[in-house]
Amino acid sequence: MREFILRALKAKTSPEFSLNDLPGTGGRMDLVCRSISNALFIAGDMRRDTVIHAVLEGPKFPPKIVSFYGERLKSVAPDERNIASHIQKALESGIDLKLREEKEVSPGIKVAKKSFEELVKEKSKTSQLIYLNPKGKDIREFKFNKDVCFILSDHIGMPRQSEKFLKKFISKVISLGQITYLASHVIVIVHNELDRRRI
Amino acid sequence: MREFILRALKAKTSPEFSLNDLPGTGGRMDLVCRSISNALFIAGDMRRDTVIHAVLEGPKFPPKIVSFYGERLKSVAPDERNIASHIQKALESGIDLKLREEKEVSPGIKVAKKSFEELVKEKSKTSQLIYLNPKGKDIREFKFNKDVCFILSDHIGMPRQSEKFLKKFISKVISLGQITYLASHVIVIVHNELDRRRI
Repeated sequence: MREFILRALKAKTSPEFSLNDLPGTGGRMDLVCRSISNALFIAGDMRRDTVIHAVLEGPKFPPKIVSFYGERLKSVAPDERNIASHIQKALESGIDLKLREEKEVSPGIKVAKKSFEELVKEKSKTSQLIYLNPKGKDIREFKFNKDVCFILSDHIGMPRQSEKFLKKFISKVISLGQITYLASHVIVIVHNELDRRRI
Repeated sequence: MREFILRALKAKTSPEFSLNDLPGTGGRMDLVCRSISNALFIAGDMRRDTVIHAVLEGPKFPPKIVSFYGERLKSVAPDERNIASHIQKALESGIDLKLREEKEVSPGIKVAKKSFEELVKEKSKTSQLIYLNPKGKDIREFKFNKDVCFILSDHIGMPRQSEKFLKKFISKVISLGQITYLASHVIVIVHNELDRRRI
């Protein structure tokens, strides 16, 4: 299985944002939606072997994790506004979740009251955890396991303290080349590499 | 220079579409916007060596070409709605253009009354024209020139007659692997390959 964890430090955790202003009122929710879209859609189909977890840490109720499971997803479209509307519904439905509680709000979409650190720890038990950095090992030379989970950050980047924390759990730091790509683009490049190898 | 030509058969050529419904009223304008975003943005910067031409062929005034020149672009954000608003302004401003006329509507954004075929012929004089198909030559083994132009189609695909036309002008058909990717994803994968080679 392919999993992505996207940490979005400013993305809203309450449903009070406007679908007409995802970058502003949503705390760069546009970036989150593009990443989800790129993780899940291919021409004429959806990637059924892929999951993406958006870890939202903006106001009012951080942290919240909204996860999209390709295997079970229905009636989600690839445009930012549609995906944002699903996130908004999930946040609305999960507004009173207690710590570590999670809830399936529609087929393939879950919301949880869980921290980035907890999710990373959890995934490290079952998946090869991979972090990306231009100084890492070239992705094209890296040997992937069957179950991989990529950890991505938003436009702000991973806080230094979190990078220290991650060192304990990640299997490898890999590189896509000398350019620093947007998270949503990293997802596409990673998918292509795994597709070519039929992982 | 890197250029992309995206043909969008149903995308509106009049400004009468809602920014709140790009897939429906815009004739899949969401797809056009994601492609433009992926062509131009990298982390913290814009690709100044890249141009993308969106060939719009939906109602009311087809064909129209809206082009984004990375070198001169200002105040464009990567979200679909922002890019769509620039396309809408360009279509508004170019509503009365006569055949072959073009107009710069804001820094780095031009609108033209020009057909897909004319644009392809024009670009074939200066660039290596490349068409993508899973049956083509593997992109990783292909030798690119300095000036390349990739021809992409939307969710409907390139009409058969256009494929015949293209055969006369394209330098090569190349492949990204066995999966058929969305146009917006093709752009990211192509960029990554050229970035790695520093083309």
